[in-house]
Amino acid sequence: MPRLRLPSLIDVHVHLREPGGEHKEDFESGTRAALAGGITALLAMPNTQPPLIDSASLALAERAAALRACCDYGIYLGACAENIAFAADLAPRTCGLKCYLNDTFGTLRIDADDLHTVREHFERFPKDRPIVCHAEGQMVASAILCAHLANRSVHIAHVSRADEIALIRAAKERGIAVTCEVCPQHLFLSLADAPRLGKGRSEVRPRLATPADQAALWANMAYIDCIATDHAPHLLSEKDSATPPPGFPGVETSFALMLTAVHDGRLTLDDVLARMAYNPRRLFGIRDPEQTWIEVDTDALWQPRGAHMHSRAAWTPFEGWTLRGRVESVTLRGVTVYEGGRFRVQAGFGRNLAPIHQT
Amino acid sequence: MPRLRLPSLIDVHVHLREPGGEHKEDFESGTRAALAGGITALLAMPNTQPPLIDSASLALAERAAALRACCDYGIYLGACAENIAFAADLAPRTCGLKCYLNDTFGTLRIDADDLHTVREHFERFPKDRPIVCHAEGQMVASAILCAHLANRSVHIAHVSRADEIALIRAAKERGIAVTCEVCPQHLFLSLADAPRLGKGRSEVRPRLATPADQAALWANMAYIDCIATDHAPHLLSEKDSATPPPGFPGVETSFALMLTAVHDGRLTLDDVLARMAYNPRRLFGIRDPEQTWIEVDTDALWQPRGAHMHSRAAWTPFEGWTLRGRVESVTLRGVTVYEGGRFRVQAGFGRNLAPIHQT
Repeated sequence: MPRLRLPSLIDVHVHLREPGGEHKEDFESGTRAALAGGITALLAMPNTQPPLIDSASLALAERAAALRACCDYGIYLGACAENIAFAADLAPRTCGLKCYLNDTFGTLRIDADDLHTVREHFERFPKDRPIVCHAEGQMVASAILCAHLANRSVHIAHVSRADEIALIRAAKERGIAVTCEVCPQHLFLSLADAPRLGKGRSEVRPRLATPADQAALWANMAYIDCIATDHAPHLLSEKDSATPPPGFPGVETSFALMLTAVHDGRLTLDDVLARMAYNPRRLFGIRDPEQTWIEVDTDALWQPRGAHMHSRAAWTPFEGWTLRGRVESVTLRGVTVYEGGRFRVQAGFGRNLAPIHQT
Repeated sequence: MPRLRLPSLIDVHVHLREPGGEHKEDFESGTRAALAGGITALLAMPNTQPPLIDSASLALAERAAALRACCDYGIYLGACAENIAFAADLAPRTCGLKCYLNDTFGTLRIDADDLHTVREHFERFPKDRPIVCHAEGQMVASAILCAHLANRSVHIAHVSRADEIALIRAAKERGIAVTCEVCPQHLFLSLADAPRLGKGRSEVRPRLATPADQAALWANMAYIDCIATDHAPHLLSEKDSATPPPGFPGVETSFALMLTAVHDGRLTLDDVLARMAYNPRRLFGIRDPEQTWIEVDTDALWQPRGAHMHSRAAWTPFEGWTLRGRVESVTLRGVTVYEGGRFRVQAGFGRNLAPIHQT
């Protein structure tokens, strides 16, 4: 049984639903799920209720996380017209600024017409701190040019389509500072899977794309900086309702899916670690904590089952798939917090990775 | 009476409504109106009925123009997903490719989500032939990056807002190939004028902007390559209806408005001629026809009156304004086609400026 000790993983795109959606997930359930997936640090998105757009709302998430997080975390600030003047001041309390340039779950959105808000945030937010954009289609191009003209980089979240990765590749080849992430659902699922998944359970933003889009992502793996989950927990009762919210849970399956791809010869273990550990740390300025690693059985076969997930979502779009590679244990700052399917960690053990909290 | 002989004007953005909207304007009424405004060549937009997106529809406009145009003209091809494969082949019959990246009058539109169509057209259309984008807000940024990555220039139509001209300025300062035009309505009108104009008669795309936007356009005149009218004739019965279509007529007032601004010391006559004659010719590859000029009385005071307009629209948002500077005569290819308010030109005298027609 090849048991490997590997660097622990960072997931730069996670929705923990706290504050306001704790029935779907909270900082405890979400960070436990993350640990089970080999993730010792995650970056939490700000499209909560209320959205995290100022000091008071940010404090709600900070307090919830301080009380309940089992792994380390950062918290994004959401960009909007109303916080142009003070977003930069809040930067030290955050892992970065998130700009929603397209519609998705929640109300946080910069309108396509609103060039002003994008440009102002890109100019004002500290140039060495990450700005992440939910940008699809032409919004990817807009985000890249606005960042370029502001002499800063931008990170494009959950790239899903051939034309988008082609644009990012072209920009990188021209020396323009842009990075991106791709999610397992866009690497391993496509519109071809939607009928099988069903209407509600195939709803995700960005939407599942065509098999050609999916193939283009694999073909351009060299231009993908991070694999992130966009873990977006909703209950099955919500997903199967008449108005299913978009989003898939993902932290418990992302690494196993990628390890399976390694086993299938689609990429190397180093390729995966670069995109799930090294690049996320480098791009988001996250220090490698001491005495932190994961142990992985790269040969173990297992089948994800929603009923066995630690996420409150308790379902997975990869239900019953046979995956090869399983996280056996997770050690965070010298403490073996997860081993053999059991947690040995207190809520609140997780630390805030924001610069202001780093010593 | 200071009567000046000046180079004739080129208007790179005109809607002549033919085919399909001849009750609003046709190639004869529109080109006569243009001549009265000192314009001897105009570039006609493709959002007609049907839209000009293939050889057959383009031929409809070509035939109408050949029969009726009184001044010289070019015809744009409209970009859409359906003509990616053959738009470049039609380039020699056109003055350029028009991409609608935002909603406006007509059905021609590339969706904000559709990065593919924009990128393909930008790659395929001849790099030395103009691509003009109706782009507002973040679509301006998208168009500029897509052009940059395709190693080509792009011309942004009717820039109307402070954030847009600031972005274009920043791109130019970085050496990125982009040009732009501004319309008289955005230089001389703002939202402050909307109540006076009334609901229907203030409807235009891009919309009238704020006085601060208006001031920003004047302040950045150095970064504006062309003054173009976006002459968009609709009947008053339509403008005053419950569903007013967007658009203003403009070819008969644009030069007088700019000459008035010269008289008011806001810019020089050379500044105006650069943006209404020299730059349009250079950017759109239009040869200077021989024995062609206009004569202008730069001191003449006059008041635009819709009832006296040659455009079938027969109204103007500048009704009753006192303008200083009037076109007295227009000589095109040795023929004085307009003098003292009278036309001496046959329908069909105008020539197609498309490369395929140039000898």
